[in-house]
Amino acid sequence: MLVRILLDIVNKNVRSTIMKAARFYDRGDIRIEDIPEPVVEPGTVGIEVAWCGICGTDLHEFMEGPIFIPPCGHPHPISKESAPVTMGHEFSGVVYAVGEGVRDIEVGQHVVVEPYIVADDVPTGPGDKYHLSKNMNFIGLGGRGGGLSEKIAVKRRWVHPISKDIPLDQAALIEPLSVGHHAFTRSGAKAGDVALVGGAGPIGLLLSAILKAKGLSVIVTELSSARKQKASESGVADHILDPSEVDVVEEVMKITDGRGVDVAFECSSVNKVLDTLVAATTSAGVVVIVSIWSHPATVNVHSVVMKELDVRGTIAYCNDHQETIRLVEEGKIDLEPFITQRIQLDDLVSKGFDTLIHNNESAVKIIVQPRSS
Amino acid sequence: MLVRILLDIVNKNVRSTIMKAARFYDRGDIRIEDIPEPVVEPGTVGIEVAWCGICGTDLHEFMEGPIFIPPCGHPHPISKESAPVTMGHEFSGVVYAVGEGVRDIEVGQHVVVEPYIVADDVPTGPGDKYHLSKNMNFIGLGGRGGGLSEKIAVKRRWVHPISKDIPLDQAALIEPLSVGHHAFTRSGAKAGDVALVGGAGPIGLLLSAILKAKGLSVIVTELSSARKQKASESGVADHILDPSEVDVVEEVMKITDGRGVDVAFECSSVNKVLDTLVAATTSAGVVVIVSIWSHPATVNVHSVVMKELDVRGTIAYCNDHQETIRLVEEGKIDLEPFITQRIQLDDLVSKGFDTLIHNNESAVKIIVQPRSS
Repeated sequence: MLVRILLDIVNKNVRSTIMKAARFYDRGDIRIEDIPEPVVEPGTVGIEVAWCGICGTDLHEFMEGPIFIPPCGHPHPISKESAPVTMGHEFSGVVYAVGEGVRDIEVGQHVVVEPYIVADDVPTGPGDKYHLSKNMNFIGLGGRGGGLSEKIAVKRRWVHPISKDIPLDQAALIEPLSVGHHAFTRSGAKAGDVALVGGAGPIGLLLSAILKAKGLSVIVTELSSARKQKASESGVADHILDPSEVDVVEEVMKITDGRGVDVAFECSSVNKVLDTLVAATTSAGVVVIVSIWSHPATVNVHSVVMKELDVRGTIAYCNDHQETIRLVEEGKIDLEPFITQRIQLDDLVSKGFDTLIHNNESAVKIIVQPRSS
Repeated sequence: MLVRILLDIVNKNVRSTIMKAARFYDRGDIRIEDIPEPVVEPGTVGIEVAWCGICGTDLHEFMEGPIFIPPCGHPHPISKESAPVTMGHEFSGVVYAVGEGVRDIEVGQHVVVEPYIVADDVPTGPGDKYHLSKNMNFIGLGGRGGGLSEKIAVKRRWVHPISKDIPLDQAALIEPLSVGHHAFTRSGAKAGDVALVGGAGPIGLLLSAILKAKGLSVIVTELSSARKQKASESGVADHILDPSEVDVVEEVMKITDGRGVDVAFECSSVNKVLDTLVAATTSAGVVVIVSIWSHPATVNVHSVVMKELDVRGTIAYCNDHQETIRLVEEGKIDLEPFITQRIQLDDLVSKGFDTLIHNNESAVKIIVQPRSS
């Protein structure tokens, strides 16, 4: 009888501490498997993940990685973890537990996560550039669990409460939207400025949504008809120019009375697009490079010099989540149009990655529900 | 008798209105000839030129031009002039006449010229970016006379009085020094910052002088032994690194405790130098492109993105002369070490251009005296 009671206890404990997660083992090897639930340590928040988006970075890890992910046997200097790691860094959820010492978040609150792994001694207040700190990595890539699992425990600093008015599926897009917000802040652009966005992939579209919400006029240049259509129907672009149909620089000059745009955002990793942005930007204007390039770019530095352009890099976000969440809460940005597919965790590779690899233009954002509904 | 008197008057007038000038006719065709003296129109200042430097731009016009110079028969839209034009835009002199309406400059004052040709309706006050205005060109290239002549009449706006404590030969270097000052202001650098200057040609050296005067630590990277020596003996560099002897990025990291420089200045038009600067600059740092490139550059945009660098173009100067003059007047910059040759106008091509073409490294700044002393 005692044995039976003990077994029951063990079983119950084991059952309650097992969850599904998408784990990256190596390039092309992502497995959906059962792993122990996270422990909600002091100072952390236990989150039941509602939805998690698939990011281009996840795709690069799957096809060409590990890149950000510390390879098996090579632990990340901060997280001390290496592959296999749980994936997913664009997620929303509901708080199910709060660790000791966390007093400003309650069970039941809706939250999103700013998925940083930074060293404990890095200051993370306003103005601190913690996103550029040494060995910075991301939850869902560098360890510390991920959004492509049923639950995750996250340090309080990186948990951002959101209004229950934001549907949790849309909230999963707040992370990539923050990337757009950071690119906007890096640009120094202001209401009334004219922006040219090169490429209407997920980041180009979400960035355009930020720019519109901030009062800019937005010109989008894009070749793909599916993406042009999305830029059009989501209302984030005032003008959509197709370089296969028009001379983009010429059209931009017409739109801006020969002046050129105040600011341009490179969201395509395509050199020709970068050339177009440099040519279409006005004197003393700013060109922000948002996309990750795997190869060097050729830049018309003569124009950079003669027009005194600023070519600025931007990576991820840094104290951008609060304002990004506010824009969504106030209804200035509607994220619904950018969710193109909703899938279950078991279908992550077959329906998620596969779509992004073979039918990329049909998708803006594929979001994944880790817990079967 | 009357005829004789009239002839005397004519002769006297002709004599007094004729002067020597270096005139650009076409590529490879610069002539020292007699031309009429300028008329000191209302609002202008008549300057007897003391010394005029030869600029890299002048050399490019001679060897590959016309570039800035409006070719014969194609008048510049603002100056309405075309080749032949008088050359020289780096000059100092003494006021010999003031035009009607000019009340704040006196005959005998020592002056330098900010040699702009901009449209009459372009605002030129503090904060106005007149140097980026449409069809901007330079006195001594786009018309309106030049410093490689005995006299010139210049609009009051572009004439900057200087203290008689600054020797007039050194004052001829205030124009290229202002280029360095503008590059410094574009960089946003401040006292205490560490700067890396790529290339110790005339602009790299003068920029370094500005940086030192502004309280920065200066690391210069340069291959040429003559230029390394000049950087050393002029005292403008705290460290001089030769890429043929050391790994510049590695050395910079040693000097900066692994941090990298706050700001870097590209003064060589050499892609490898630009690569070095991008690699050696710290996160959120600034790389300023000072040199004029005749071809596109290859840029490691991945680093620009991941380190959130700003790559900024800078051209000429804009409201920089006042502060540049102040630095020289206060003795914070000694321009004497940068004058390597003094020649007469008749020797402009044989001793000036020829040295710069065939024996470039021996010269930092060759200055020309238009009026035989």
